[in-house]
Amino acid sequence: MTIKVGIVGYGNLGKGVRKAIEQNADLELVAVFTRREPGQLEAGQEGVRFEHISTAEQHKGSIDVMILCGGSATDLPEQTPAIASMFNTVDSFDTHAKIPEFYDKVNAAAKQAGTLSVISTGWDPGLFSLNRLLAEAILPEGKDYTFWGKGVSQGHSDAIRRVPGVKAGVQYTVPVQAVIDRIRSGETPELSTREKHLRECFIVAEEGADQEQIRETIVTMPNYFADYDTKVNFISEEELKAEHEGMPHGGFVIRSGVTGAGTKQIVEFGLKLESNPEFTASVLVAYARAAYRLSKEGQSGAKTVFDIPLGHLSPKSAEELRRELL
Amino acid sequence: MTIKVGIVGYGNLGKGVRKAIEQNADLELVAVFTRREPGQLEAGQEGVRFEHISTAEQHKGSIDVMILCGGSATDLPEQTPAIASMFNTVDSFDTHAKIPEFYDKVNAAAKQAGTLSVISTGWDPGLFSLNRLLAEAILPEGKDYTFWGKGVSQGHSDAIRRVPGVKAGVQYTVPVQAVIDRIRSGETPELSTREKHLRECFIVAEEGADQEQIRETIVTMPNYFADYDTKVNFISEEELKAEHEGMPHGGFVIRSGVTGAGTKQIVEFGLKLESNPEFTASVLVAYARAAYRLSKEGQSGAKTVFDIPLGHLSPKSAEELRRELL
Repeated sequence: MTIKVGIVGYGNLGKGVRKAIEQNADLELVAVFTRREPGQLEAGQEGVRFEHISTAEQHKGSIDVMILCGGSATDLPEQTPAIASMFNTVDSFDTHAKIPEFYDKVNAAAKQAGTLSVISTGWDPGLFSLNRLLAEAILPEGKDYTFWGKGVSQGHSDAIRRVPGVKAGVQYTVPVQAVIDRIRSGETPELSTREKHLRECFIVAEEGADQEQIRETIVTMPNYFADYDTKVNFISEEELKAEHEGMPHGGFVIRSGVTGAGTKQIVEFGLKLESNPEFTASVLVAYARAAYRLSKEGQSGAKTVFDIPLGHLSPKSAEELRRELL
Repeated sequence: MTIKVGIVGYGNLGKGVRKAIEQNADLELVAVFTRREPGQLEAGQEGVRFEHISTAEQHKGSIDVMILCGGSATDLPEQTPAIASMFNTVDSFDTHAKIPEFYDKVNAAAKQAGTLSVISTGWDPGLFSLNRLLAEAILPEGKDYTFWGKGVSQGHSDAIRRVPGVKAGVQYTVPVQAVIDRIRSGETPELSTREKHLRECFIVAEEGADQEQIRETIVTMPNYFADYDTKVNFISEEELKAEHEGMPHGGFVIRSGVTGAGTKQIVEFGLKLESNPEFTASVLVAYARAAYRLSKEGQSGAKTVFDIPLGHLSPKSAEELRRELL
């Protein structure tokens, strides 16, 4: 018996979820739900059934978990409570400041429906959050550091593309290696986000554009670049296509703590991802398995990564896990 | 209201637990239980109450969790089931091959008594196990690698001290950096434990001993060194005392997996510990908090790190965790 899964939304994340489900024999994709015309999505997607989101309700009882792949700005605040009133759900809501409010709304909807919703999973929030919690609980005296990258920042890439004379471009957030090395060697400096990261831009300039002017506009741009160490590289359109089409990302959570009389102890978790959406999708799929199991156990309401025993993520039995992985 | 904790066994690990409890305001040490004469342990340990292990039963109802700090070879196989028949327990049983059998015995004792026992926690088994599980569940197609060190191996240190002409010495297991670098860069080689680690010995020779003979005896010693790349350094007694009295350890769990059409994704967890026993103790103390909470929730029997939501390790409420750490 497989766990029956639906996908809501079919951008990069939704496509990643489809691929991740194929890697897990105990899960089965029933249908992809979309706000677009389902027929438009079918070309080149053999073996996937597309349905309009308005038909979701008809699948009540035949889909075990819906994986919600919309964005945090406008999609998920509406979608998660609505879908949670019919199905178990998993989402990657990542607007940190709004998580408490989002939790309350989803929890109320899921409790009332008797469904279970895993909210705000992925890698940050998600795996990074787990590691922040774990290291802080074990080393209460200490400092932790989260670094992001090297990875594309969509907001900053959009900002550079709006600069006059810029034809195309991409921006990477890059953790400062020298700072990471200091922390790994046991120092615990006070650092702002901007001291931990630099920004690197790869730009295709329009023909005849003043590169010096573009550079100046970017590095002095308030909020986005002015306070950061920013490097601007001009490249050809061919190079941009060849080298910068991927969606790599990653980062580190490092806690540097002390035990006893000043004994240094360092805990580090890191990710190096060739595809951010495919990895996030793989996390969502593992949590879909957990959502199904928790629901079968009779639990309901909103849950976060903090509430879920990690054994529930694996297709292996508790006995197999103890024998093979402990 | 604090969680009342007892410590059973007062070697390096038990001492580490005492120090870790002092770092956690919600925990309180009631007494240290020992098989030795309690009076012998009191010198220089102000503020700690020592009791003979035979008196433990009298504390039933007034100690919430017993942290068992004995060894895995002979202490814990007896102690954990015995103490679990009276108290919630946490231990660091680390004989991997015998965990299933140990689990069954402890589970039976704890179920019958209505207590809860967290077995086999620490960092390996423990945090490393959690990370092996997490990465495998998220990246089902992949390979994982566990490296230990740089850290002292007690068994190998004992072996070199038995070599004729050796006055004192210590052996470190050291992960091979070049191999780690290959894996971090995306390669997935097949590697045995000996290909991933080298062995480094620091030896104080007896006066007039033949150093070349000692080196030869060590590097050709079957099982312990013959199949490893082994480096032997001769140092003075003063240097041994100054540089090699600590108990550093650590290591890495790295999973290199693929998603989609061969997209590489790497997940890594690492520890760099100045004191292995103090860090292990800190993990046990965080799991003591979890054992107490699970027991309060009405659960009983043996549990491993795979069964416990990580939120239970933290003194913070679920709401605080969502707001501050998610």
